[in-house]
Amino acid sequence: MAKRIGKRTLALPERPGVLACASVVGGKEGAGPLKKGFDEVSADSYFGQDSWEKAETTMLGRCLDHCLQKADGVKPDCILGGDLLNQCVSSAFAVKERGIPYLGLYGACSTMAEGLALAALLLDGGGLSSALAFTGSHFCAAERQYRFPLEYGGQRTPSSQWTVTGAGAVLLARDGGALNITHVTTGRVVDAGVTDANNMGAAMAPAAHDTLLAHFDDTGRDFDDYDAVFTGDLGAVGHDILQDLLQKDGLSPGLKYLDCGVLIYDLLTQDVHAGGSGCGCSAAVLCAHILPAMERGVWRRVLFAGTGALMSPLTCQQGCSIPGVCHAVTIERGERA
Amino acid sequence: MAKRIGKRTLALPERPGVLACASVVGGKEGAGPLKKGFDEVSADSYFGQDSWEKAETTMLGRCLDHCLQKADGVKPDCILGGDLLNQCVSSAFAVKERGIPYLGLYGACSTMAEGLALAALLLDGGGLSSALAFTGSHFCAAERQYRFPLEYGGQRTPSSQWTVTGAGAVLLARDGGALNITHVTTGRVVDAGVTDANNMGAAMAPAAHDTLLAHFDDTGRDFDDYDAVFTGDLGAVGHDILQDLLQKDGLSPGLKYLDCGVLIYDLLTQDVHAGGSGCGCSAAVLCAHILPAMERGVWRRVLFAGTGALMSPLTCQQGCSIPGVCHAVTIERGERA
Repeated sequence: MAKRIGKRTLALPERPGVLACASVVGGKEGAGPLKKGFDEVSADSYFGQDSWEKAETTMLGRCLDHCLQKADGVKPDCILGGDLLNQCVSSAFAVKERGIPYLGLYGACSTMAEGLALAALLLDGGGLSSALAFTGSHFCAAERQYRFPLEYGGQRTPSSQWTVTGAGAVLLARDGGALNITHVTTGRVVDAGVTDANNMGAAMAPAAHDTLLAHFDDTGRDFDDYDAVFTGDLGAVGHDILQDLLQKDGLSPGLKYLDCGVLIYDLLTQDVHAGGSGCGCSAAVLCAHILPAMERGVWRRVLFAGTGALMSPLTCQQGCSIPGVCHAVTIERGERA
Repeated sequence: MAKRIGKRTLALPERPGVLACASVVGGKEGAGPLKKGFDEVSADSYFGQDSWEKAETTMLGRCLDHCLQKADGVKPDCILGGDLLNQCVSSAFAVKERGIPYLGLYGACSTMAEGLALAALLLDGGGLSSALAFTGSHFCAAERQYRFPLEYGGQRTPSSQWTVTGAGAVLLARDGGALNITHVTTGRVVDAGVTDANNMGAAMAPAAHDTLLAHFDDTGRDFDDYDAVFTGDLGAVGHDILQDLLQKDGLSPGLKYLDCGVLIYDLLTQDVHAGGSGCGCSAAVLCAHILPAMERGVWRRVLFAGTGALMSPLTCQQGCSIPGVCHAVTIERGERA
């Protein structure tokens, strides 16, 4: 039975645990610094399909398969997921043949954190014994939907980010493994007035700032209480903005603050400009890097703060600014209380 | 603390209650059979804005305002919502200035049922004391996004439905009013292979069938145990298909089975062909008709089964069939146990 702490944080005394996780990525991500962690790297960006949207669906389906195979036959009571495609079709189509109840989410690139948060709360609140959160994105499908057809060869600005071709899935159980979800801080929609659709890091950093402050206020914790704090996909530009904002509040993130969009590519050699983005970014980094490292004992307590930009090409064309949202989830390795 | 019953249904012993609800619609809906129930009818389809997408945002914002005004100062701990626009921008923009944590959903036209279900489960599971579910749709914004620009004057097929310009919001509280959420049955993605994007009723009816059967199986109930069972927006065509499917299973819905898409317009005089559809359809009918009638004692126990078609113009263009989903929520008027 979840307990409210402070204004926006819920503590989960049942500590739902990670039963299994998996990630599938494309070739570019598979050539990056986290290459050893992915369950599958596809050299074929079409994933055997005839369109990039179908490729995204296939990638998500394979990711679900990997996760469920690792779960030793545990079939989740419920799947929560979403994606960036219009009407979130790739996630809906990926769960279609599985016969498992499905709750569709739209949290933009914060979807993995939102799904984890909701899955953990549903498990903590009883009734369900297991729930799976998943999401993903595909560079080529996102480019032609959000920006330009790839064939156009549009030039990218220095602050632009590269949508990750990747997917991640986490199966949580009420009686789960050694990694547990202990706190959830849900995000507000924060709009700092950024209108540059090629600077998502700047648009999302204020939302991450708002949620991190709320989490620290509510729990009485700060960076000292965490081994690492991850934002979803602020990239190099957004990472630096958030660092500045935090320092102005007297917080010292130091080397503990990391961003999944900075980690997934080699920013010096992979020509991704400010780093990775997309639903698949934080999802794949969580499943290929963060959770496995926690399993190995590298970190004991981590804050996973998924970030999303709540825009569409149409809102940008109509002159609207780009609000952001950030949901944070505390993951701990340790014995149950 | 929710309890699982059967395979897919959760019983909510805390019985979260409806503290307030509100609806805002356009002129066509305001001229229909339910005209007396809406909190606001806007004769201006632009809602004072310069685009239909901004109109949808304004309509959703006004609906939130009406609901919160009725709630006597109760500010929800969390808002859950979504819409049909690409990247669900109208709901995200509508909550932007409110400073309330926001969980974005994508359930297509089942969003109100999905939001109600999740809000009720979060309240039942502890931590939150109140949560608001809302959604809406706008005919003109949906037409140009999903089908053709209105100026094109495309001819509509007999099975096509009219996207409701309307919004609904329900504020639930752990210690709520006389109308309580007692059961939730989450939907699976069901694909019967329908490829006609102008026959959403046929695409969604198999999902409604699947969820109603699961709910009845899990709870041991049938139509006799309900005063009324509402589907979200199957329209006249989908309503008849579902009635046929249920009768083949030996169930006798009789006059107890109703569809919000059939109720919201006068099908004989309002030129809407098979009836209403869109997120706003079941949301507005719930808030303007079903809940008020339950308050007045017309019905004591109702099953509200929101239906959604999980497609995008792109999936249809790529030759994919149209899967559906249906989430069902039991609403009861009565004393707490």
